[in-house]
Amino acid sequence: MKIAVLPGDGIGPEIVAEAVKVLNALDLDLEMETAPVGGAAYEAAGHPLPPATLKLAMESDAVLFGAVGDWKYDTLDRPLRPEQAILGLRKHMGLFANFRPAICYKELTHASSLKPELVAGLDILIIRELTGDIYFGQPRGRRIAEDGHFPGAEEAFDTMRYSRPEIERIAHVAFQAAQKRSKRVTSVDKANVLETFQFWKDIVTEIGKQYPDVALDHMYVDNAAMQLVKEPKRFDVVVTGNMFGDILSDEASMLTGSIGMLPSASLNAQGQGLYEPSHGSAPDIAGKGIANPLATILSAAMMLRFSLQQEAAAQKIEAAVQKVLADGLRTADIYSEGTTKVSTREMGDAVVAAL
Amino acid sequence: MKIAVLPGDGIGPEIVAEAVKVLNALDLDLEMETAPVGGAAYEAAGHPLPPATLKLAMESDAVLFGAVGDWKYDTLDRPLRPEQAILGLRKHMGLFANFRPAICYKELTHASSLKPELVAGLDILIIRELTGDIYFGQPRGRRIAEDGHFPGAEEAFDTMRYSRPEIERIAHVAFQAAQKRSKRVTSVDKANVLETFQFWKDIVTEIGKQYPDVALDHMYVDNAAMQLVKEPKRFDVVVTGNMFGDILSDEASMLTGSIGMLPSASLNAQGQGLYEPSHGSAPDIAGKGIANPLATILSAAMMLRFSLQQEAAAQKIEAAVQKVLADGLRTADIYSEGTTKVSTREMGDAVVAAL
Ligand SMILES: CC(C)[C@H](C(=O)O)[C@@H](O)C(=O)O
Ligand SMILES: CC(C)[C@H](C(=O)O)[C@@H](O)C(=O)O
Repeated sequence: MKIAVLPGDGIGPEIVAEAVKVLNALDLDLEMETAPVGGAAYEAAGHPLPPATLKLAMESDAVLFGAVGDWKYDTLDRPLRPEQAILGLRKHMGLFANFRPAICYKELTHASSLKPELVAGLDILIIRELTGDIYFGQPRGRRIAEDGHFPGAEEAFDTMRYSRPEIERIAHVAFQAAQKRSKRVTSVDKANVLETFQFWKDIVTEIGKQYPDVALDHMYVDNAAMQLVKEPKRFDVVVTGNMFGDILSDEASMLTGSIGMLPSASLNAQGQGLYEPSHGSAPDIAGKGIANPLATILSAAMMLRFSLQQEAAAQKIEAAVQKVLADGLRTADIYSEGTTKVSTREMGDAVVAAL
Repeated sequence: MKIAVLPGDGIGPEIVAEAVKVLNALDLDLEMETAPVGGAAYEAAGHPLPPATLKLAMESDAVLFGAVGDWKYDTLDRPLRPEQAILGLRKHMGLFANFRPAICYKELTHASSLKPELVAGLDILIIRELTGDIYFGQPRGRRIAEDGHFPGAEEAFDTMRYSRPEIERIAHVAFQAAQKRSKRVTSVDKANVLETFQFWKDIVTEIGKQYPDVALDHMYVDNAAMQLVKEPKRFDVVVTGNMFGDILSDEASMLTGSIGMLPSASLNAQGQGLYEPSHGSAPDIAGKGIANPLATILSAAMMLRFSLQQEAAAQKIEAAVQKVLADGLRTADIYSEGTTKVSTREMGDAVVAAL
């Protein structure tokens, strides 16, 4: 089983090192190879996703990804900016199904900005389509407007689009995920305004008929953004497009209060996957040894489960993380009075010890 | 001064009646004419925005709008659905600048799902561009995909677009609004992915140079959705496009906990405006006399201020609303122990009495 390890920028290297340590402690037959990505790759090889890194990722069973980005690359041309690496990996590997759990850990309920009773026990799974929508739709660019409010003016444009098979496959992913949970799917759209999302809604409804054991409801994206704040526990599995999923999954993870704990998985049709924490590269705290490695460690667990068929090992990691939390160990981001503050490395060591 | 009164569906007629009562109590020279809109207009005239209603709106100085929509119209063809009325009014009247305050009233801090210390004193002004973006961009529709992941498959698509003058004018609106407040503007974009919003960011930055007294920062929409939950008070004026504004303004109003209190204004270049509550038509509670009329009454105050140049009268209404809140009067949506629960009509009467 081959794993491409791409640490990236900011806190990426520190948190990935801890996840690698945990994987190594498991006594599985894993071959891990590291390559640069993002700003680090731009520095090393002149491109955020160098051909050698992409090749390694494509040839591996799974990618363990840290984070990319730093203010210092903000002035580069768009194709050279760190985030192009992640867009490129999604596109070239065909990672269309993004799993973003938003879980509120019992021990961390107080860390949420929401009142504890609204988030205690929260467990939402957001499934975001990741290779379509306005992220990749062509044509896009700048031109002179031919119509609209100001014909003759300079304008910029992008194309939102979804084809039937793209919607069908992500809908199947969502309904099948719901079958293993509480059998409810909320499909989020903007069918009252967008052709693309009326089509989305029609097809999700159609596919839903093949899953009579799963209850399906539909919600407009603006309403979903409100309901997440008002009553997050009403949601179980949420499925939506790339753009709305970007916004809603970040909103949902932040409201748990412990975004430093949340893993994510992005899968393609062959089960190959990219695994990364839900949080970003946090350049402001990079190198200080205070970042929380648990989201990355839990991403490694998802990797074992989804791409490497090592369910037992995945559960071992998850139990170890539960144990260190129960033991009161906390990195700075989730620290509260009465718990023990530990460094990035100490947290990784504690998870290894708890395995 | 001529006002088109469009009550609409659900609780629309009840809450608009109270706002009209308040306006009538002010002794201004207002000519008000009522017309059907939304589902009510579909029933009466076969179209959600009948020509006579549109004509009345166009000829008036301002439109006082209730709310549109009801589940029972969900099966109609899109062009006949109630929300087409509001899109049509925006388009035909050229209402490009939408003002959505998200204010947390001192007396209602407890009603927020956020911890009180995070929302106490919150006062954000979201300025949403309202006639461009993917809402109105052409082309849009269904077709057979020529490229993408599944060439030959059926697909649906929409066009996101902004022209330079569209961005310039909304940027000016935002900077000028900030000059009257705490002189900070956050422009929300997705420049890391979308051509349209890289253009947006470039032009907002350019226009910002004309307002050296206003501090401008930029934030990606996914991060903005997170920061609103995490630390809403970091925002003052937020300016963004139609689609992102739809999502973020609803998220922000819900986190105040008192969406039943929040007005909105949509203005065109001539100062004509449409004024409506931020909340929807709530068909589930329609006709029960329990809806909160204050958002609509405060929308009438905005109308007096922005379209009718009656600042003194606007302030009178706002002071009266403050007084009824201070007196402990509450409709069901904002009721809490120790306050006095009142009906829609009693609330309207109390505001009139407090004028
Ligand atoms: C970095 C950016 C391109 C990316 C996205 O918008 O998808 C990020 O926000 C994410 O959600 O992984
Ligand atoms: C009803 C709908 C078309 C509308 C919109 O998306 O603009 C509504 O959500 C709003 O924000 O006024």
